Amino acid sequence: MNDLVRPLQAAQGLQHDWHLERIVGELHDARQRWRRQQGRSSEIGVREFPSRDALRSIVTALCGALFPLRLGPPDLREASEDFYVGHTLGLALDALAGQVRLELSYSARLRGDVDDGVEAHTVNIVREFAADLPRLRSLLDADVHAAYQGDPAARSVDEVLLCYPGITAIIHHRLAHRLYAAGVPLVARIIAEIAHSDTGIDIHPGAEIGAGFFIDHGTGVVIGETAVIGQRVRLYQAVTLGAKRFPVGDNGELQKGQPRHPIVEDDVVIYAGATVLGRITIGHGATIGGNVWLTRSVAPGSNVTQASLRHDAD
Amino acid sequence: MNDLVRPLQAAQGLQHDWHLERIVGELHDARQRWRRQQGRSSEIGVREFPSRDALRSIVTALCGALFPLRLGPPDLREASEDFYVGHTLGLALDALAGQVRLELSYSARLRGDVDDGVEAHTVNIVREFAADLPRLRSLLDADVHAAYQGDPAARSVDEVLLCYPGITAIIHHRLAHRLYAAGVPLVARIIAEIAHSDTGIDIHPGAEIGAGFFIDHGTGVVIGETAVIGQRVRLYQAVTLGAKRFPVGDNGELQKGQPRHPIVEDDVVIYAGATVLGRITIGHGATIGGNVWLTRSVAPGSNVTQASLRHDAD
Amino acid sequence: MNDLVRPLQAAQGLQHDWHLERIVGELHDARQRWRRQQGRSSEIGVREFPSRDALRSIVTALCGALFPLRLGPPDLREASEDFYVGHTLGLALDALAGQVRLELSYSARLRGDVDDGVEAHTVNIVREFAADLPRLRSLLDADVHAAYQGDPAARSVDEVLLCYPGITAIIHHRLAHRLYAAGVPLVARIIAEIAHSDTGIDIHPGAEIGAGFFIDHGTGVVIGETAVIGQRVRLYQAVTLGAKRFPVGDNGELQKGQPRHPIVEDDVVIYAGATVLGRITIGHGATIGGNVWLTRSVAPGSNVTQASLRHDAD
Amino acid sequence: MNDLVRPLQAAQGLQHDWHLERIVGELHDARQRWRRQQGRSSEIGVREFPSRDALRSIVTALCGALFPLRLGPPDLREASEDFYVGHTLGLALDALAGQVRLELSYSARLRGDVDDGVEAHTVNIVREFAADLPRLRSLLDADVHAAYQGDPAARSVDEVLLCYPGITAIIHHRLAHRLYAAGVPLVARIIAEIAHSDTGIDIHPGAEIGAGFFIDHGTGVVIGETAVIGQRVRLYQAVTLGAKRFPVGDNGELQKGQPRHPIVEDDVVIYAGATVLGRITIGHGATIGGNVWLTRSVAPGSNVTQASLRHDAD
Amino acid sequence: MNDLVRPLQAAQGLQHDWHLERIVGELHDARQRWRRQQGRSSEIGVREFPSRDALRSIVTALCGALFPLRLGPPDLREASEDFYVGHTLGLALDALAGQVRLELSYSARLRGDVDDGVEAHTVNIVREFAADLPRLRSLLDADVHAAYQGDPAARSVDEVLLCYPGITAIIHHRLAHRLYAAGVPLVARIIAEIAHSDTGIDIHPGAEIGAGFFIDHGTGVVIGETAVIGQRVRLYQAVTLGAKRFPVGDNGELQKGQPRHPIVEDDVVIYAGATVLGRITIGHGATIGGNVWLTRSVAPGSNVTQASLRHDAD
Amino acid sequence: MNDLVRPLQAAQGLQHDWHLERIVGELHDARQRWRRQQGRSSEIGVREFPSRDALRSIVTALCGALFPLRLGPPDLREASEDFYVGHTLGLALDALAGQVRLELSYSARLRGDVDDGVEAHTVNIVREFAADLPRLRSLLDADVHAAYQGDPAARSVDEVLLCYPGITAIIHHRLAHRLYAAGVPLVARIIAEIAHSDTGIDIHPGAEIGAGFFIDHGTGVVIGETAVIGQRVRLYQAVTLGAKRFPVGDNGELQKGQPRHPIVEDDVVIYAGATVLGRITIGHGATIGGNVWLTRSVAPGSNVTQASLRHDAD
Repeated sequence: MNDLVRPLQAAQGLQHDWHLERIVGELHDARQRWRRQQGRSSEIGVREFPSRDALRSIVTALCGALFPLRLGPPDLREASEDFYVGHTLGLALDALAGQVRLELSYSARLRGDVDDGVEAHTVNIVREFAADLPRLRSLLDADVHAAYQGDPAARSVDEVLLCYPGITAIIHHRLAHRLYAAGVPLVARIIAEIAHSDTGIDIHPGAEIGAGFFIDHGTGVVIGETAVIGQRVRLYQAVTLGAKRFPVGDNGELQKGQPRHPIVEDDVVIYAGATVLGRITIGHGATIGGNVWLTRSVAPGSNVTQASLRHDAD
Repeated sequence: MNDLVRPLQAAQGLQHDWHLERIVGELHDARQRWRRQQGRSSEIGVREFPSRDALRSIVTALCGALFPLRLGPPDLREASEDFYVGHTLGLALDALAGQVRLELSYSARLRGDVDDGVEAHTVNIVREFAADLPRLRSLLDADVHAAYQGDPAARSVDEVLLCYPGITAIIHHRLAHRLYAAGVPLVARIIAEIAHSDTGIDIHPGAEIGAGFFIDHGTGVVIGETAVIGQRVRLYQAVTLGAKRFPVGDNGELQKGQPRHPIVEDDVVIYAGATVLGRITIGHGATIGGNVWLTRSVAPGSNVTQASLRHDAD
Repeated sequence: MNDLVRPLQAAQGLQHDWHLERIVGELHDARQRWRRQQGRSSEIGVREFPSRDALRSIVTALCGALFPLRLGPPDLREASEDFYVGHTLGLALDALAGQVRLELSYSARLRGDVDDGVEAHTVNIVREFAADLPRLRSLLDADVHAAYQGDPAARSVDEVLLCYPGITAIIHHRLAHRLYAAGVPLVARIIAEIAHSDTGIDIHPGAEIGAGFFIDHGTGVVIGETAVIGQRVRLYQAVTLGAKRFPVGDNGELQKGQPRHPIVEDDVVIYAGATVLGRITIGHGATIGGNVWLTRSVAPGSNVTQASLRHDAD
Repeated sequence: MNDLVRPLQAAQGLQHDWHLERIVGELHDARQRWRRQQGRSSEIGVREFPSRDALRSIVTALCGALFPLRLGPPDLREASEDFYVGHTLGLALDALAGQVRLELSYSARLRGDVDDGVEAHTVNIVREFAADLPRLRSLLDADVHAAYQGDPAARSVDEVLLCYPGITAIIHHRLAHRLYAAGVPLVARIIAEIAHSDTGIDIHPGAEIGAGFFIDHGTGVVIGETAVIGQRVRLYQAVTLGAKRFPVGDNGELQKGQPRHPIVEDDVVIYAGATVLGRITIGHGATIGGNVWLTRSVAPGSNVTQASLRHDAD
Repeated sequence: MNDLVRPLQAAQGLQHDWHLERIVGELHDARQRWRRQQGRSSEIGVREFPSRDALRSIVTALCGALFPLRLGPPDLREASEDFYVGHTLGLALDALAGQVRLELSYSARLRGDVDDGVEAHTVNIVREFAADLPRLRSLLDADVHAAYQGDPAARSVDEVLLCYPGITAIIHHRLAHRLYAAGVPLVARIIAEIAHSDTGIDIHPGAEIGAGFFIDHGTGVVIGETAVIGQRVRLYQAVTLGAKRFPVGDNGELQKGQPRHPIVEDDVVIYAGATVLGRITIGHGATIGGNVWLTRSVAPGSNVTQASLRHDAD
Repeated sequence: MNDLVRPLQAAQGLQHDWHLERIVGELHDARQRWRRQQGRSSEIGVREFPSRDALRSIVTALCGALFPLRLGPPDLREASEDFYVGHTLGLALDALAGQVRLELSYSARLRGDVDDGVEAHTVNIVREFAADLPRLRSLLDADVHAAYQGDPAARSVDEVLLCYPGITAIIHHRLAHRLYAAGVPLVARIIAEIAHSDTGIDIHPGAEIGAGFFIDHGTGVVIGETAVIGQRVRLYQAVTLGAKRFPVGDNGELQKGQPRHPIVEDDVVIYAGATVLGRITIGHGATIGGNVWLTRSVAPGSNVTQASLRHDAD
């Protein structure tokens, strides 16, 4: 029915001139300036970057393959689960290979390399990623179980899997982290940003996160690239695990890749709005209260609140 | 799942040059030549012609409004039939008004007129068309009934309405003919061609066709612009009701709009492959046999076959 | 990009009144008259008829399951063929069960039955249909092979499968005929009409057709409900295998279900435009020439042409 | 145009083997482990959980039915508003009944019940929900009015309805809360999470919220399950109305359903970033300043700021 | 709104077992039998055949590029015609190159060749096709003009271009013939079959057709692979230009590629239902009457009718 | 494949009565009450407000025109960039004109004006907006460059453009601000809310922001209508640049349009969670620490932290 209204506009007589030729020319010049400024030759004729839309479809398919009756199509029946999983996985891995190849070619070009090994490298990465999916499924089962146990409002594990943004975020993260570790950080980053946009939870794909991880509510959580999180850790909304300052090298440029985010040990709970900055360690079993601002390490079993900090500070 | 495969192609490096600039220029020149040849000023800047896609959507909507539980959406329930009919009709008539306006403006421009009266004319045409829909519904009910009675393979009136291409053709024709008579022959013609493409039945929207009309099988049927068909007429596939020759005026050009197709009276049956040409009359109750080639009038109640004709001829 | 133009129309100020309330009321009355006339109680509140759109999707899926690398999705690879086939078949059979159930319920209601056995009957029909699919695949392979051998323009069996309307028609027919025989003639008829609309070839699902069947070009072919066709038969465009006249019972109504169409034995060829009418037999190996009009049986091995007939007639 | 690029990838020759058979088997085993661990019999063969996509469509349709000219289709005209509302509501309520039925069946199965009463229960819930829609519309009108009055940047009530994420959140909440109260908390929760994802505002469907409620900016707001909010309350971004700690029962498990979130009386304003925890009461007319951390009740008319708290604390 | 009804079916409990595993296995075996029978190694793992869907999109885009204001998007304005043409042509030619490459690779594989030259060959074919488009546009302009002059019912050249199935057929043919001549007959054949399905007009892409060609009504027209048609020829519905018999070589197989269809010289008119068979010549300016069956050459300027033939025959 | 499951639901027999007539009537009454209350005559028959869906499509198209190889379609090649830019820009500007016209008409109607000048005003606004696009592209290039330099995790400018939500937000803002300044604040606001929903970053389109602006992570950032931000400013997540209190006029109503948000000079950095309120000035080069609550101006080059503030406060 929506198509009914389309052609009506043709009668409106939109005869105005937007001076398209001139604007197209000026935009052309602006692109050329930028490309020169970035030292780009004009020979790069195709769009060589991984695609967010493609990765969104791939992740949706992988979710279906991992949890077919819950995140697969509504009409799936258990009798044909394996057919669905095999079919979907085949498509998703072929498509993922396409995205991985795009990143590897892009990176090679950026380094000025010829990209001789790209094809073999692509196959390796995707094959190992695929082989690891059953392990990721079990990790995610532990995450779902942790969420169910940690939230008094949860009624069933199914509700947790289908409704909780924290679960959406950790599914994306576990897939993205595996790809980050395999050497395709841009593909990983795009997957992380898809979850960020949908949930407000921003986990850098470099972060290492143990089993049984749960984020409640979640909006505003930020977890940095070099953060290390143990098992059964629980976070609430607006928690930051960030960097205190960025190390600058002798050349005055930011040094990349240095450990600069917190280590959070097993069984830690961090309440809403807490800010934890720098390469400090939160000892196992510690509790960090809401809105706490923390830049020093904390002993195992500690209970840190605003009040305790203020006392401490004065 | 289909979106998964899209971006793979980007890696292919389709770097070939099709010389687009040159071809675009030559196509531009070809268009200009054609426009000059047709005496068109270049000022006609919008696409001012009715749209086939739009009219297909409009007819689909009108079919739903006429037969809501049969040709409307599969989830419609009788309890909300009138809501559906009113909502759908409102959209369809608004959209039809847009197409009618396009044709009227186009025709005015072709005549070199200013199109002052287009808006009022549009409203008149659509309003009268709308007011006539209940009558068309009853006519179509009679067509469905005739088909059910005329085909030994038909099991129910519902099967006839939903499966028979002859019914598809007559629904389109009755809508198109009403619009043809109201003064928008191009809109009418486009609707007729939609049915032609779907069914292989080619009825010019100018043809006048009485109630209880039925075409069986239908592929290859052609009914010309000035044909007049009575009540309860039945045709089979590949029947032609055509013109014998085209009258040419003093200026050597074809004369348009002259009666040049057959008159078929009530209760006539014409079997498959028969060709009936020229402004002749098939008297009421006559039967025309398969593959007959007929260019002379036939008395009421006659039974014309190939054999009878050959006899006649010799 | 298409969505860009949609909202423009809102500015047009289509403020005309189509008198919707009145037309909706009159259409309501017209529906009620028709339903009374058809003896329908108003209690039938849902749309209980099989759906053409649904059956089109189902047939498309079955085609993919039968010929996965040729008629399945373009990105399918042989390594995951079986996953695709199993997944697609599962969906298609569930959906087909839905359509079969609709027809059985509809028929029960039409007979005034309670529909107690519908569910079990549905499962039986679909299960047997499913079990027969491998046999149908082999039959269709023979059809493809026959087309390849019968057409000098054919370059490969793949071209035949993908390009030839005659193949499209026979795939639909073999599926439809199986369902017709199983007791769901409306579902079967709708499938046949889908092929009719796409190819101009109109084969009634009741017709029995042997292996290695080939129709070339095809537009205008009509094959009736009780036709019986042997093995390795070849037809060209516009051939009719029809009924001569319809038997009328004592009550003056058409008698349904009587054998009334031709029997065509093995290895017969019928050229374009030939019309074969009535319960006659074309003996094996006979050839029927183009445009021949035939209402008498023909001995095996005969070669019937217009000339031979005319001679015969005089 | 997008379809143009699809088939190109087939030429790429993605011939790599991902060992699909093995991975499918391992994922199968992982699912079985999880199901055993959750005590699930394998007999649950269909996907029995409400669907987020379905509920998103249902809510979109309900929004259109509640505010037809603002949230309905762009081509709607006032003359056919009621037709649209009736048609849309009919579809939406049928579909909602489907989702409600899924939840009730799921819950019955989880409890080990036979689900005898599900059908009647479903009809009751949807019928009462439907009957309450006009009241919800009036409540929402009051919310829109409050937003318009509370924001100096608002230019009209239409702008508020169409642009403000706080309004999106409260529309979803009022629908979700009604369903939560009627006994379908999962359906309600999914609706709430749809709004959470779109706006960053996380309101548990259990929360009771009076008329004239307004959230400005909104990102990061969290309102807990047992919160009670009076009339004309105004919140800003990142406000938390949370639980201080979770009550644990004798068995060491979290006690569910206990009142554990704040009561906010009429005419309270809570500024950005304030955290209000536990079953405390904010008296009517009180103002809570930005970033305030509050775990004790506050008298009516109070004005609480960080400074006042610190003073208070020392 | 359509999405509303989807998930309802999940509640139906379709728990029947279709024995998928067994059927999938039997279909697998049937495929293997066929592949063995066709002498296919199992290594051909991707679907290497051109795609009908892709070619339909490509032809639609080429039509838009050839006639932007008539067959392009409804919102196109003359001011940006060239931008649209260049953009659309770029996409369409890239996509066409993909299809051409598929056919060349397929053919090479069928011949057992390595496909070394495929890439260069592909680029050559597409580049020359692209360069020829302006010439095709002018040819088509002449076809449109001929149709306008030949049909008394035509009101304008725009009506002809947008409504006449004969024009749809000739646009597809001119594109397909160019590709056929360039060495991609399967791509060409698929394009021809798209037109055949839409119009009922079946023109083999090998046929050579001069300027100013017009087919009226068109359903059932068949024009064979080696037919040669001069300038300003006019055909009506159901005309066949076919082969009389197929030459069989010494090995008993059909000989492919031999001239076996008629030559039709300039300014010939052939009326509806005429059948013209074999490598005969219809001299320039001749008129062939309706339903004529013709297997001998005809002198220029002749007027052949059924009567004249019968006379001739006796 | 998805369409397979649709029609199954029809068999479910959803025969329940939702009392649609009554609810439709009550909703009608509720709408009338609201319209009376808002002083609306019932003559406003069309939906006269800009559309969020339309503006989302327009912004997507403008992003493609600004960064064709990065944000345009994946199959774009450099050789046809300008064609794509021209074609896309033409459509986007026509569509934007439609939205601008809707807002201007709406505003005129709200003021009780006749809308005589709307058409000319629309053309002016869109033409100037179009002419400014090349300048906006260069500004955005500087933003991308600043993000790349400011984040140690960034690997390339392409990654920044495609992955960073802060870049998404500033692209939307620069387009929205230009339209806000041109006199269409509702269109601008809707564009801003699209970015808010996708990124959690809420920038009022009235805010003035200099070149080289970068927001990292971003969720929870709020920037108010009258904020003024210099060049090379960097913000982190959850920073608020808000109003302290709203000025109330003599009539007790909020005064709209007064400067009430901060001025942030060049080269300022504001860390996560900082709240800056009121018309204060942050001097150039100053650094504001995380979680700082700031309501007084700060001298150039200052370094404000929680500790410094507390010290200051006591």
